[in-house]
Amino acid sequence: MIKIGILGVGTVGASVASILETNVDIIEARAGKKIVVKSGVVKNLSKDRGVDIKLSDNPLDIIDDPEIDIVVELMGGVEEPYKLVKQALENGKAVVTANKALLAYHRYELQQIAGDIPLMYEASTAGGIPIIGALRNGLSANHIESIQGIMNGTTNYMLTKMINDGAKYDEILKEAQDLGYAEADPTFDVGGFDASHKLLILASIAYGIDAKPEDILIEGIENITQTDVTFAKEFGYEIKLLGIAKKVEAGVELRVHATMIPQNSMIAKVDGVMNAVSVVGDMVGETMYYGAGAGGDATASAVIADIIDIVRGNQAPMLGYKRGLEDGLQLLPIEDIVTNYYLRMEVDDKSGVLAKITTTLGEFDISIESMLQKAHRNESSVKLLFTTHKCREAKIQEAISKLKELSCVHGDIAMMRIEK
Amino acid sequence: MIKIGILGVGTVGASVASILETNVDIIEARAGKKIVVKSGVVKNLSKDRGVDIKLSDNPLDIIDDPEIDIVVELMGGVEEPYKLVKQALENGKAVVTANKALLAYHRYELQQIAGDIPLMYEASTAGGIPIIGALRNGLSANHIESIQGIMNGTTNYMLTKMINDGAKYDEILKEAQDLGYAEADPTFDVGGFDASHKLLILASIAYGIDAKPEDILIEGIENITQTDVTFAKEFGYEIKLLGIAKKVEAGVELRVHATMIPQNSMIAKVDGVMNAVSVVGDMVGETMYYGAGAGGDATASAVIADIIDIVRGNQAPMLGYKRGLEDGLQLLPIEDIVTNYYLRMEVDDKSGVLAKITTTLGEFDISIESMLQKAHRNESSVKLLFTTHKCREAKIQEAISKLKELSCVHGDIAMMRIEK
Repeated sequence: MIKIGILGVGTVGASVASILETNVDIIEARAGKKIVVKSGVVKNLSKDRGVDIKLSDNPLDIIDDPEIDIVVELMGGVEEPYKLVKQALENGKAVVTANKALLAYHRYELQQIAGDIPLMYEASTAGGIPIIGALRNGLSANHIESIQGIMNGTTNYMLTKMINDGAKYDEILKEAQDLGYAEADPTFDVGGFDASHKLLILASIAYGIDAKPEDILIEGIENITQTDVTFAKEFGYEIKLLGIAKKVEAGVELRVHATMIPQNSMIAKVDGVMNAVSVVGDMVGETMYYGAGAGGDATASAVIADIIDIVRGNQAPMLGYKRGLEDGLQLLPIEDIVTNYYLRMEVDDKSGVLAKITTTLGEFDISIESMLQKAHRNESSVKLLFTTHKCREAKIQEAISKLKELSCVHGDIAMMRIEK
Repeated sequence: MIKIGILGVGTVGASVASILETNVDIIEARAGKKIVVKSGVVKNLSKDRGVDIKLSDNPLDIIDDPEIDIVVELMGGVEEPYKLVKQALENGKAVVTANKALLAYHRYELQQIAGDIPLMYEASTAGGIPIIGALRNGLSANHIESIQGIMNGTTNYMLTKMINDGAKYDEILKEAQDLGYAEADPTFDVGGFDASHKLLILASIAYGIDAKPEDILIEGIENITQTDVTFAKEFGYEIKLLGIAKKVEAGVELRVHATMIPQNSMIAKVDGVMNAVSVVGDMVGETMYYGAGAGGDATASAVIADIIDIVRGNQAPMLGYKRGLEDGLQLLPIEDIVTNYYLRMEVDDKSGVLAKITTTLGEFDISIESMLQKAHRNESSVKLLFTTHKCREAKIQEAISKLKELSCVHGDIAMMRIEK
């Protein structure tokens, strides 16, 4: 019999305990041993958790319990769980965590500390989708060329509503909050931060890149308007908040931002709160993984899969390798990212304006690929929407600053990146 | 250093050898050891294989070579590879196979023979998509409610062309043959047999069902016409050749047939030669896995992933469990399958005909859900197309026999199953 202790018995922790009971037979058949929850640790002992397990408010009751084989960390936070996971590993206990923030900051130290002790984290990224297993095992013969993931259900729900129903950002954010898909402070989701943690985890397995959230480009969906949605539809794009990892000649791009992607790509077809991760390997080509990225039972499904793997004796290293993966592969600086861009701006409805704009773009070697001009109710100005051919991030940022200084350009310039 | 021997150096075998060379560094980093091909066995030694490995025409040169750690079986066939794989396992060698036919017939004996020796087969099902890993590990906490898979690229390519371009079956079969997607004798693909082997493998991991191809319902796409395609479009369906495994109260349905599925389901969006498998688990909900189902490099990607897993020390049982998985779960007899049906028939264009048909259906407790009547160039008859509410397979088969006896019904009656 294998005994587990759960640090943090919230929604996911309660699901883990309850599934281990409900599906006890099939889990025992697959693991080869019976798995039981011995105890849980919570901050607030007076709150009812809806599951019948022994609770304490002292993490050491699990960490130092010699009877506990596997510690399941579901607390959230970064430094506190790091300390506890470290201690559990040092006590020789296997660890399963769903904590993406912990891993976004400490995955390399943890792999070091874990050594040959299993430390697994399938639930940290894209909930119930077994994407960690796919990258770590299923695609292990490949150099990974790119990863593009819808790794945040809240924003995908909002974008789907904006695109399919013509809803406005503020209205749909309110609706997502009412449905429990978005937090009262939605910044972590809509600002792209949640997706960035998951992207960093996947990029570690794929490339061995050691970056932290503050090292990479992270933008959210806050500035998307119905004008952008209309343009995207017109030109055959969907808009998705993507986490993108891409190997280019000079290094690895890591970035999270609202992205226009071709409507006919598989990932563009993923709607609502669902998640999906598309991975291109040099040998296998594109594979895609789709499913629920959140929710107690879906996340617990991944946590328990890890527990079963540990009980079966899985010995793969935490990140899938022990020594350096791809020698010399470095994170590409943000300014060196190269892609296509979409720009939206309000300009004077006068002759000569377009010439001024294209001249300014030309100074930075940027050329326009396609364009749409939309008359405005205010007749003295028009909306100018266009996409550029490929250019460097540094150039487009400089060009935007310069364009804003033109007297014929009014207010802010909105920008979105395009992946073809 | 790990030494492998390859039985059968065709397209996939050559890809395995070549990827182990091309991606040698990243494979060694992930496996923790260097993996080299020591030798290969082929039937015809005079044919150039395009790879630089030592070849022999005697399988025992690999099976009995004490230096070889892992035998990779890529020969095809059933009884010959069964004998050799058995011998390799008895010699204590781990085995990786891409042979779906071997597993469709002998997976349970092989699991028995293998015992604790790794026997892996990711490449046997859906090529480069790591669906075996997903089912065996990633979803191991779940009772599997259903599996629906596009597991044959040839037929998906043909159906996509028939639906999107209005191509006729015979024309598109010819095109698929010219492109190398379909064999000169296309029966194995278009008749659903290839998909049935893969379905049986997945069903073993999901349900522990021991069935052989001849025990289950297998139909192909040969009778689909543009009339069916038009009806499907009109009523919001796509047509796919699906392998379906579904747990119902009375047992497990296993079937392969052309299926009408809602256009908005994820699997309906998978076009061309691509494969995809949708799995519904009781805890995780739906997950889907998409990618290339065939091709040398994609299949070799899965073969090598298995090799790496073995080198890492993976100890999961072959089918994911050692004792019975779901006690008492039995294959449902074909006649007890319950689903919705689509029927197409040619009937007299006279009053009273529809009444006769609905009366006949009524005798078998079958009721019509939606209907389309299409005038024909031959003015004395019309095409009658309709879908039924759910009914038992036995009833629809009897009803079809009875309908064919009606004097107002001409020629054959085409039937397709619907999954909602």
